[in-house]
Amino acid sequence: MTGSWATFGADLHVDLAAAAGVRGLRAALTEALREAARSGRLAPGTRLPSSRSFAADLGIARNTVAEAYAELVAEGWLTARQGSGTRVAERAAVRRAAGGRQAVRGPARRGPAYSLVPGSPDLGGFPRGAWLAAARRALTAAPNEAFGYAADARGRPELREALAGYLARARGVYADPDRIVLCAGFAHALQLLGRVLRGRRVREVAVEGYSLDVHRDLLAGAGLTTRPLWVDEAGARTPDLAGLGPRVGAVLLTPAHQFPTGAALTPARRAAAVDWARSTGGLILEDDYDGEFRYDRQPVGALQGLDPDRVVYLGTASKSLAPGLRMGWMVLPPDLLEEVLAAKGAVDWTSSALDQLTLAEFITSGAYDRHVRGMRLRYRRRRDDLVAAVAGRVPVSGIAAGLHAVLDLPPGTERSIVQAAAWQDLALEGLARFRHPDSQMPPREALVVGYGTPATSAWAPTLAALTAALP
Amino acid sequence: MTGSWATFGADLHVDLAAAAGVRGLRAALTEALREAARSGRLAPGTRLPSSRSFAADLGIARNTVAEAYAELVAEGWLTARQGSGTRVAERAAVRRAAGGRQAVRGPARRGPAYSLVPGSPDLGGFPRGAWLAAARRALTAAPNEAFGYAADARGRPELREALAGYLARARGVYADPDRIVLCAGFAHALQLLGRVLRGRRVREVAVEGYSLDVHRDLLAGAGLTTRPLWVDEAGARTPDLAGLGPRVGAVLLTPAHQFPTGAALTPARRAAAVDWARSTGGLILEDDYDGEFRYDRQPVGALQGLDPDRVVYLGTASKSLAPGLRMGWMVLPPDLLEEVLAAKGAVDWTSSALDQLTLAEFITSGAYDRHVRGMRLRYRRRRDDLVAAVAGRVPVSGIAAGLHAVLDLPPGTERSIVQAAAWQDLALEGLARFRHPDSQMPPREALVVGYGTPATSAWAPTLAALTAALP
Repeated sequence: MTGSWATFGADLHVDLAAAAGVRGLRAALTEALREAARSGRLAPGTRLPSSRSFAADLGIARNTVAEAYAELVAEGWLTARQGSGTRVAERAAVRRAAGGRQAVRGPARRGPAYSLVPGSPDLGGFPRGAWLAAARRALTAAPNEAFGYAADARGRPELREALAGYLARARGVYADPDRIVLCAGFAHALQLLGRVLRGRRVREVAVEGYSLDVHRDLLAGAGLTTRPLWVDEAGARTPDLAGLGPRVGAVLLTPAHQFPTGAALTPARRAAAVDWARSTGGLILEDDYDGEFRYDRQPVGALQGLDPDRVVYLGTASKSLAPGLRMGWMVLPPDLLEEVLAAKGAVDWTSSALDQLTLAEFITSGAYDRHVRGMRLRYRRRRDDLVAAVAGRVPVSGIAAGLHAVLDLPPGTERSIVQAAAWQDLALEGLARFRHPDSQMPPREALVVGYGTPATSAWAPTLAALTAALP
Repeated sequence: MTGSWATFGADLHVDLAAAAGVRGLRAALTEALREAARSGRLAPGTRLPSSRSFAADLGIARNTVAEAYAELVAEGWLTARQGSGTRVAERAAVRRAAGGRQAVRGPARRGPAYSLVPGSPDLGGFPRGAWLAAARRALTAAPNEAFGYAADARGRPELREALAGYLARARGVYADPDRIVLCAGFAHALQLLGRVLRGRRVREVAVEGYSLDVHRDLLAGAGLTTRPLWVDEAGARTPDLAGLGPRVGAVLLTPAHQFPTGAALTPARRAAAVDWARSTGGLILEDDYDGEFRYDRQPVGALQGLDPDRVVYLGTASKSLAPGLRMGWMVLPPDLLEEVLAAKGAVDWTSSALDQLTLAEFITSGAYDRHVRGMRLRYRRRRDDLVAAVAGRVPVSGIAAGLHAVLDLPPGTERSIVQAAAWQDLALEGLARFRHPDSQMPPREALVVGYGTPATSAWAPTLAALTAALP
């Protein structure tokens, strides 16, 4: 046991005294050890006491210590080897060798320095000046009633009008302002739709076999079972929908740019989805999360235009402007409107009326188009950088659109590459975490690289860190 | 039957064809008749066909027509007298005599011209310029991460810091920023707390015998039964809490200014509430909806200061700034924080980060205090006008604070006065609609006059309309 263990152990008593219950104790212990390893407070190679003696020392159950050790070994912070006991892993030494920096980082819970985790736009691209100018025009022109409780549960008519025009023009959406309902983002919309589907006695919803776990969890939270569809280079295999059986009442799709694999749903697959919806009375939920950002080909229009009576179109300002706005919209089939508004309830969750008016002005003034054009250029350049940087090392796909690409990896390497990158201060996500647990697809190992995420100033070092992490 | 009935009847077929189900049919018929009477399309005195022949005419059940007639008679749009059948009431003629205006109003569903319905601030008082200036400063200073997905489910730290200072200073709230959770308004907060209480196996929540039905409905929606407390000139009778039995796990109170009766909860009643909470482990939910606006005495501080471990303090910007901001906050006892955040879930309903940063800047710059001072003066002048205008006609109470007062009425007159006022284009609310259905309190008839509601330009005519409507 090194000297650093002694001071650490003394402080640990204090930390643990604040934790309540067995789960709380274990979590506190795990966190304290993790932070000690992360910050260098426990030097790499430090040998930890046996779980038995450590538990006795702390006056807690041995199992609690053993479980904390096991968790940290699985995460790579500790190593356990027969004969040499449990030790702090060597990764801190790796970092010192690489960057010559001091490993100690001060207080806990800072994220990694670099991130290519998908799902975020470049937040530095938020058009502060243009947004404020739109806010000034919007607030100056707003009628007093706009500041009151919402008179219409669908949201401000100014924004619904502006969106109807924009979505028709930019995404081929058939969008009557009367059928647009504003909400606080995609997750809010999905929660409302989940409730509506349950109200219609739907039991199951088909989802893409690779998709966002948080969306599947939201559907599960509404009492719906999710059934995975295979996903290939033509997008989700919608012809399989019929084979899923009559309990499936809806399908959640990302037609413009499959998340995370990056495929565009082909015309035949689109037609198959609509055919299924028409013949079964099912609904298609179209998540058009980054439809604005397409680089190489003509924009791929929304599926909704094929059958506005069977498709719910869902969009947000989270990728095009900023997630912090909490602004999303649904374009609903006419027969769904009342049910969605009923699910919203007497309570008005619609986002701030001031932001709604500002976004309406931002769109109608043309500032939104200008902003999207500018960001599209920025993201395209990054995508080109990425493709050039990994050329010849790993296959890259899903690059025609959006803010992320997929880098395929040799079998058996995904997890260790993600972990090694974390130790190099680069947050990455592998494809595995997006896989539906029931999916029968053959395993595919890959990185889902969100190249929209870094700030402009961080882009070059982030890319360098990525290439350093690749096999 | 007059000529206007014939054309009306023809159109009605079209309207009703769109209505689905028996309830839909009756609602559509009632609405169509109401609008016809309201707009003057059916002239006052027009005799309607018997329910039997009208039902045959429309091909619907006689009961459906009879029920629609009964509803409209109860509302005063129709009159039914033995021998002369059902006729459109004479109110249109009344208005023509009074104002010389044309009764026809164009498309349906416009609200009345004047309103003293409580619950809204003067929306014309929203400080557009100062708000925009704060937005400019806040957005200029904001770190990029503020535009991203919220890193903290409690909401932006800048606003929680600003609120902690403000609430301590202005409301005597013991407010640690770590225990503040931002939300999208009071109803959102109550919904979250309802879920938390149910998770704690609470079955019943005590509420004030006069209170907002929408709040009671939200609690009921969470699976909680509400139990009414008597309300008198000292506020809710909190000493009765113990008598409600052990299933009551929380009480919702408006201590600073009881809504709607206007009393301030006395120190003895406050102590009784806290004693009950301490001895039973119950929670007090303190709705401090208009605590900023107090006129005659020293501010009545928040109850929360008495026991921050047993009181959830709830406030919003809806009365002090604007409901359209959708901005509220909870100050939570430490042991409730995790449960409330769990109820919020993975989904982030917190209002716009931009508005949160703007409000933080608005508060810390002193603009919020200036605004509240200005509005307090404006509302106090209105209150004084109101008291002067009704002096000697009806007793007025609840005037020491807030944006509403209570005018007591002679027995048996509340309903007809509210109705007569509606015909004179003045929206009023009686005390009856706020009464808990299970309350055993002796009936009290009164108007709840929201003098904050009118625009400045409308204040004088609104007050004139009110005095005209009084007995």
